[in-house]
Amino acid sequence: MKENKYDDPVFFQKYSEMNRSKYGLQGAGEWQEFQKMMPDFTDKEVLDLGCGYGWHCAYGVQKGAAKVLGIDLSEKMLSQAEKINRHEKITYKRAAMEELEFPDHSFDIVLSSLAFHYIKDFPVLAEKISRWLRPEGTFLFSVEHPVFTAYGSQDWYYNEKGEILHFPVDNYYYEGKREAVFLGEKVTKYHRTLTTYVNTLLKTGFILESLVEPAPPENMLDLPGMKDEMRRPMMLLVRAKKINTGEKI
Amino acid sequence: MKENKYDDPVFFQKYSEMNRSKYGLQGAGEWQEFQKMMPDFTDKEVLDLGCGYGWHCAYGVQKGAAKVLGIDLSEKMLSQAEKINRHEKITYKRAAMEELEFPDHSFDIVLSSLAFHYIKDFPVLAEKISRWLRPEGTFLFSVEHPVFTAYGSQDWYYNEKGEILHFPVDNYYYEGKREAVFLGEKVTKYHRTLTTYVNTLLKTGFILESLVEPAPPENMLDLPGMKDEMRRPMMLLVRAKKINTGEKI
Repeated sequence: MKENKYDDPVFFQKYSEMNRSKYGLQGAGEWQEFQKMMPDFTDKEVLDLGCGYGWHCAYGVQKGAAKVLGIDLSEKMLSQAEKINRHEKITYKRAAMEELEFPDHSFDIVLSSLAFHYIKDFPVLAEKISRWLRPEGTFLFSVEHPVFTAYGSQDWYYNEKGEILHFPVDNYYYEGKREAVFLGEKVTKYHRTLTTYVNTLLKTGFILESLVEPAPPENMLDLPGMKDEMRRPMMLLVRAKKINTGEKI
Repeated sequence: MKENKYDDPVFFQKYSEMNRSKYGLQGAGEWQEFQKMMPDFTDKEVLDLGCGYGWHCAYGVQKGAAKVLGIDLSEKMLSQAEKINRHEKITYKRAAMEELEFPDHSFDIVLSSLAFHYIKDFPVLAEKISRWLRPEGTFLFSVEHPVFTAYGSQDWYYNEKGEILHFPVDNYYYEGKREAVFLGEKVTKYHRTLTTYVNTLLKTGFILESLVEPAPPENMLDLPGMKDEMRRPMMLLVRAKKINTGEKI
């Protein structure tokens, strides 16, 4: 089984206290931008990789999805999803996304929110997703930004008074494992370059439709630390379309 | 007239001593990757924005271009181009690229090497380029990477012994003017986010074909400082295709 930090009781408790856990999509700083990128869900079959509490699954159903399959590695996450985002059109399933297999053309939409930085091999997964999608299908994901994952610690660089000086970038071209600190706990994440995220899509049968580095929304700038989020990108939002067989680009 | 650092005699002298000035494309660290992204030049009409010494103009002609128009703001650059990359199929013209006007569908290829970080408004220029290109035309450019331009100084962050600690990122979402130090001289450059570079293209009639952050080539890793180039991205290479009128994406 893959590393499963979210089933660590201390980590999960801390995660459950985050705004995005308590308030759902509205509590997530990137949602205002991510929402704009959402495709039409009407009658669509949807796969959500790393569904967590199921907020995006529920959103899909609310917007007309025919059915949604939410995948997560964490039992605790899924148990919470079954409690707060249960719906007859949503199926939650425990699995490591790297080990999933589906027939070609199984879904109209594949989405993933802040999960791909936990997986080791993005190109292999992207190729599978390309096969799982029907032609014209949508692949939409958010992920931690390569600027945010490169150095490893995911923390600012401070002066001796503890004031933020800037955000450090290092080892950018050395992709792979990083020991990050998230919610005060050590978590293993994977850094990869922007080239790997974007060019992989272009090489595996996708057209890039939108790429957004979400800045903090105006109405959240008064939250603690939020102004500093203007100083470096933390997330990358990407929307791509599966090319029609035979479509030339 | 726009700021024209390259006509400053001291700066120009230093620039002329760089490998990319002395040895042309082979002396440029990014060329191995950029070359792979070059389109078919056969019988094509080409515009080179910020052509400098004319290396890319000459390359286009060598690869079969019908004619090439090289634009640069610097008289010294163009005078050198006329000396070392003169050709009957190449026209060099002095102009600020922001002030250019051409009829729609004037070119098959628009390229630009390391010049767009000197211009203030990329979206306005991108829209013009989209109009100047014929359907299916190629827009190919290299530019300093947003990670490299965000902080401003474009220098590493050092410890008290003068050793490199990491590369600093700050003010990422505040686009605009930066006072960089390049070749020991102060130069004004413009920072913009990756979102602005990429999403602008998607909104102005282009399909993204390739996005590459070139890592230093293996055979240059022994040059002074080159190993440090593995630690942060310095350049962004982008290739896009003008959409056919009526083509759906």
